[in-house]
Formats: sequence, structure tokens, C-alpha cells
Amino acid sequence: MKTPERGAAMKEFPLQKVFTLIEPGPVLLLTTAAGRRKNIMTLSWSMVMDFSGNIAIVTGSWNHSFEALMKTGECVLAVPGADLMETVIGIGTCSGADTDKFGAFGLTAKKGGEVGAPLIGECLANIECRVADYVEAHSLIVLSAVRAWTNPDRGERRTFHAVGDGTFVIDGRHVRNLRARMESKLPPGV
Amino acid sequence: MKTPERGAAMKEFPLQKVFTLIEPGPVLLLTTAAGRRKNIMTLSWSMVMDFSGNIAIVTGSWNHSFEALMKTGECVLAVPGADLMETVIGIGTCSGADTDKFGAFGLTAKKGGEVGAPLIGECLANIECRVADYVEAHSLIVLSAVRAWTNPDRGERRTFHAVGDGTFVIDGRHVRNLRARMESKLPPGV
Repeated sequence: MKTPERGAAMKEFPLQKVFTLIEPGPVLLLTTAAGRRKNIMTLSWSMVMDFSGNIAIVTGSWNHSFEALMKTGECVLAVPGADLMETVIGIGTCSGADTDKFGAFGLTAKKGGEVGAPLIGECLANIECRVADYVEAHSLIVLSAVRAWTNPDRGERRTFHAVGDGTFVIDGRHVRNLRARMESKLPPGV
Repeated sequence: MKTPERGAAMKEFPLQKVFTLIEPGPVLLLTTAAGRRKNIMTLSWSMVMDFSGNIAIVTGSWNHSFEALMKTGECVLAVPGADLMETVIGIGTCSGADTDKFGAFGLTAKKGGEVGAPLIGECLANIECRVADYVEAHSLIVLSAVRAWTNPDRGERRTFHAVGDGTFVIDGRHVRNLRARMESKLPPGV
């Protein structure tokens, strides 16, 4: 297994905890690489499918990234912090068909360890994924996480959530004192 | 079309905006009614599928509600506020097989307008749904919203998000001033 390039400030994150990055429902970025052409799309229709790192997303040919995703069978799901909110909106409102989004938005593409799609250096976490299934009737893609990274160097740790009406909600208080009541429902190692 | 029972304090919510209740990724409750037996489960694996009120959830026979959901083809997705956090955890850590959850947690079952499953009077919003599809290979159920209600009387308007490790994040600041930048991506009427 390769590791991300030097200076990437990425820390490996256990696959059995990957679902905890997605379950709270943050806005995500999805990167692809078709040959040398990298792209990024914004995504907020995603869902945990199990405790093993399988994640569903809804996308289709209306997204420029779809072709590269299906052709390569690989992508990275990246979790941006609230400091990237305007960048994420910008990424979501232009197309990779005519825009080099890494360049346009000043984001750093880092090599991952398992897939060809790039990690985003400025994000809080990056999940390297392979396409496990495509349920065409529902435009639903099942991604399987194969490796994951967090970036402990980011100062802004809050994620943010799309309402879908053009407004967004930033994470507020993190309630940790109810965990004991949840023990019966937690999988091992989480 | 019937309306919810008198005093329910429910206000009709347009179906074309239902996706905005789910897209931010709040913890949800799901109610079912098999005959006279009502039940509630806690759910945080859910996803918007389109702008028309189709919503995916992951569940299966390991949840007691699954049988009633598949048998009746109906449920209600309810959005609890942060004031219900401990109640929601309680609901998620016991089983309808041996517990009358409405009674045990002091929640009010209200009649909806379209489905047999009850609305939850104490929630911020209730979405009456029919089962549109069951993708068994992925334990994925597609629900179609058929009617929706909000409860303007609740003082606590914040929702909360499960991290999946037994901790939760309450909504923080609601950012509304970026909507103009999103106009190109918003469906009509939202």
C-alpha cells in the first residue's frame, strides 16, 4: 500500500469508522480522475449503508463527473469544513466540462494510496472509494471505502449541511455525554 | 383528502419542498401501524433521491418496524427537534417487540391525512410516505412522500445529527445569505 505524498498532513482513518464521517449528513465533495483530467463535484445526497464503509450516493449523467466515475470505478469523497462553504458552492454551480476546478478554486490535489482520484488537501477527511454497484433505476451508486484519511491540521473542524433551498446549517454543539446510552448499538471499534 | 385531527397544530408543507427536510441529514423517527399496533424506530441512514419527495432509507428484518413497513407499505418519517434527543436515543435502543414506544416515551400519535401510520405530535415535521420500491440486495427502501406537515408550535427549531459513534451534533448557525449564488441549482417552488 502506498501512502499519500509527503507533506500532505493526512492521518490514516480506520475503515470501520468511515461511516461516522457520512452519517451526520455533511455536504461532501467527490473527486474523479479520468486520465490526467481531475474533477470535483458537490454532493449532498449521500447515505451510510452499513458499518463496513459502503456509502450510497445519487448521481447520473446530468453530472459531468458521472462519466469519469463509471469509467474508472473510483472516486474520493471529501468532507469540507465550514471554512470552505463558499468554495463548495462555487464547485457545485459550475461544470468540470469547461472548468479546471482544482485550479479555479485553489484546491490542492493530493495522491491517495489506493485510487487514482485525488484527495483534497484542504478537506477535513478524504475517503478513497471504489464503485461497488450502480442501481440504474434509482440513479444510485454504491461506493465502497477502501482507505480513508483525516487532516488534523485544519483549524475549522465544523462541517456544514445543505438544506436544499440554497441555505446551509453549520454544525453547532457536539453532544458527547449520551454515548453510554448508545453502547448496545455501536459496532466494534467505533 | 382528510386533514390531521383537531388541535394537532400541524401545518401542511408542500411536497416539492419535502426534500429540504431530509437533505441536511437530521436524525429521523419512522412510525408504522400494523393494525392497531403502532411503533416508532430511530433512523439516521436516509437520503434524498430527487426533488419529488422520493427518499431512500436502509433497514431490514433486524428492525422490528420492517415487517409492518413492508406489510402496510406505509410509514411516517418524523423530524425531531434537539429537545427530543434523549427520547430519540431511548426509542433507538429498545424494541417495539416488547415496548409500546408512544406510551413509554410520552409521545402523541396523531392521525395523518393519507397513511395509517401516525404522525408524532411533538416533532418539527412529519412526512407521510408510501413504499415505492425495495432494493433487497442493498436493504434499501425507497419511500415516496404523499403528504407532509410541519408543527410551527415547537419552540426548539434545531434538529440534530448522529455521528454514529454514540455522539450527536446539534444544528448551529443557519447561513441564508448565499442563496442567490445557488439559484441555478434550485428546483421551482423551493
